[in-house]
Amino acid sequence: MTLSEIRRPLALSDRAQEFPESPIRKLTPLAEAAKRRGTKVYHLNIGQPDIETPACMRDRLKQMDARVLEYSPSAGTPEYLQSLQHYYERQLGLSLGIDQIIATTGGSEAILFSFLVCANTGDDLLVVEPFYANYRSFAAMAGLNIVPMTSRGRDGFHLPERQVWERTFTPRSRVVIICNPNNPTGTVYRRDELEMVADFCRDHGLFLVSDEVYREFVYDGNRAISALELQGCEDFVIVVDSLSKRYSACGIRLGSLVTRNRTIYNACLRLAQGRLSPPGLAQFIAVGANELDQEYTRSVVAEYQRRRDVLYDGLTAIPGVFLQKPEGAFYCVARLPIDDAERFAAWLLTDFEHDGATVMLAPANGFYASPVGTNEVRIAYVLKEEDLRSAVDLLRIAIQRYNEACATG
Amino acid sequence: MTLSEIRRPLALSDRAQEFPESPIRKLTPLAEAAKRRGTKVYHLNIGQPDIETPACMRDRLKQMDARVLEYSPSAGTPEYLQSLQHYYERQLGLSLGIDQIIATTGGSEAILFSFLVCANTGDDLLVVEPFYANYRSFAAMAGLNIVPMTSRGRDGFHLPERQVWERTFTPRSRVVIICNPNNPTGTVYRRDELEMVADFCRDHGLFLVSDEVYREFVYDGNRAISALELQGCEDFVIVVDSLSKRYSACGIRLGSLVTRNRTIYNACLRLAQGRLSPPGLAQFIAVGANELDQEYTRSVVAEYQRRRDVLYDGLTAIPGVFLQKPEGAFYCVARLPIDDAERFAAWLLTDFEHDGATVMLAPANGFYASPVGTNEVRIAYVLKEEDLRSAVDLLRIAIQRYNEACATG
Repeated sequence: MTLSEIRRPLALSDRAQEFPESPIRKLTPLAEAAKRRGTKVYHLNIGQPDIETPACMRDRLKQMDARVLEYSPSAGTPEYLQSLQHYYERQLGLSLGIDQIIATTGGSEAILFSFLVCANTGDDLLVVEPFYANYRSFAAMAGLNIVPMTSRGRDGFHLPERQVWERTFTPRSRVVIICNPNNPTGTVYRRDELEMVADFCRDHGLFLVSDEVYREFVYDGNRAISALELQGCEDFVIVVDSLSKRYSACGIRLGSLVTRNRTIYNACLRLAQGRLSPPGLAQFIAVGANELDQEYTRSVVAEYQRRRDVLYDGLTAIPGVFLQKPEGAFYCVARLPIDDAERFAAWLLTDFEHDGATVMLAPANGFYASPVGTNEVRIAYVLKEEDLRSAVDLLRIAIQRYNEACATG
Repeated sequence: MTLSEIRRPLALSDRAQEFPESPIRKLTPLAEAAKRRGTKVYHLNIGQPDIETPACMRDRLKQMDARVLEYSPSAGTPEYLQSLQHYYERQLGLSLGIDQIIATTGGSEAILFSFLVCANTGDDLLVVEPFYANYRSFAAMAGLNIVPMTSRGRDGFHLPERQVWERTFTPRSRVVIICNPNNPTGTVYRRDELEMVADFCRDHGLFLVSDEVYREFVYDGNRAISALELQGCEDFVIVVDSLSKRYSACGIRLGSLVTRNRTIYNACLRLAQGRLSPPGLAQFIAVGANELDQEYTRSVVAEYQRRRDVLYDGLTAIPGVFLQKPEGAFYCVARLPIDDAERFAAWLLTDFEHDGATVMLAPANGFYASPVGTNEVRIAYVLKEEDLRSAVDLLRIAIQRYNEACATG
């Protein structure tokens, strides 16, 4: 037998096949082609805010005088961790120990750490769909099976009732992830919903990962309740947090993982030591946020609420479009009067333009694990008001023209 | 049956038990206690260089005028990727496409991506021990079994012969990781050794992950050969790289993953999209390195070579200490005339001081998967010469006093 006969074909891991393409970015080549043709593209597909990162954070860069950009402690610098302690005290009235918070590379790393620590390969992750599409990526990395429960637009995408959770539970269930305020739906969960999920987790010995990176963005005078505020959940709650949206600083990649369970903390700390440090420059400028007062948040939230209103009023005025008013974050999932949102979103970029412009949408099917949501899209309202108005106008015209083309084509 | 009877006890994942404590950092509490007692601690345990990060990188921070710190592309900014293209061209004479490089959050993330993409949970990772301790962490995250082959100090920690690799191979073997120049041994592999490993991987259909984060740090006029330079390995080689040591910028957390295999690249890109972006500020300042010429590297390497010589001469003058002259990186593994390096390293911090000072060492057992290396330590020579001299003097005195204490105690 020669070597070439015994040589095994080189193949990537099975899980590598499961790493999903981003549903938010996969139409990007079509958008780039449209732009090359000279068409203006309004991006309703991506949650990159245009709000300025606060000057008190950016100005820190000018004050950086370290001559060696050294490793920071694996759990984060004391200054950054203390700034988070003050933030949780101010924002949630919670007194957290500095050893209950780990600085992470964005909320992303906090999700990955949570999954790795809470569940084994082959275990089930319970999640309410539609859900943040990248949960799929972290689940694939950790070898978890996503087990979805479907929330419905007609219910404002609020959580399914306890009986649905009970039906979904199996002995393989190990961890639940919720996102509140929700990306992609904009739903903000009520206290009774959160307590129902917490009770469910407690009764079945499950971990509850609560992704709260949109915590500030709640409209109409309401506020989001953190899983850290729920009574009797200290043992099984892990909160995923991030500065990305709070301070419009997505690019610095800084977040945190918060838990009062000492064993979870220690396991996450060992993971954190494995990757040495969270980003140092990010932690350095993050401390600048200490200078911000509540007025900063109020003004940003007011700006997003105005945009939400423009988007909601515009969309609901289009015949056949359905959505409930988003309560938080800066997304909504809308049902459109079209056959297939993926085809429509591609068509918008390849075949449509009006006055030299078009719209880019994220088809919602990428946010579901079940084969539903075919005629739904996720819309991010991170554009300024006049651009949002133009984008909604374009969408109205496009829906009509698309359906005419389908009827005749 | 009541709920409390059917409630499953809350337990972390099995793999969470496997996330190792850092052997470099686990004696830190003892070092802190020593410092509180007023003892000066010379850190020979950790590879945090004291060399300044180049001003042309740090000065970029003052030029940063973006008002929104946005997500960067998932694979990295074009400017950073181009700066790496130029670096590989200049340093290795290699022409790499911009779509063969992915910006990563330190070399750490590149290792994790490699493991996830190349092997499934339960597959074997072949590694030559002693090895960089955090490979254990990434292997645990990816569910890989570490299968060690032992390299020996008497051979200068060069690679075992092919027959050892053949004996170690099983059908579960999927991926090999090498570190060249080596952390912790300081060994620089010869071309024939690298070709042997590449042939072994090719013959058995294995991926070869080559961790080259110490590429520049080679002494006595030699240079490190990159796995990217080996002929006929394009399909199965992944190079892990980092700016941390090259520019003494450990804290910015920026590295890269390089592969000419399109399928590997695409799978890693999907992972990169899952975590959105690498750190943005780090990429912004990394471009400043374009202004550095070969003289920068020459002067830094000369500085480390002087330190290596001070350390080597000092250590070999201590009776009973054995090491071969380190060829690269800024570590060595030395055998000490003591019973147990872990006990000795703790004793140095709890029971020893001389003229108000002591030394912190990393016991080498944390760098082995096999139960060997009991009387070995890893020493980092990142201190300036006079401090290194003092540290080696202290070590000489300490070894004598420790053995006297053992003999009488």
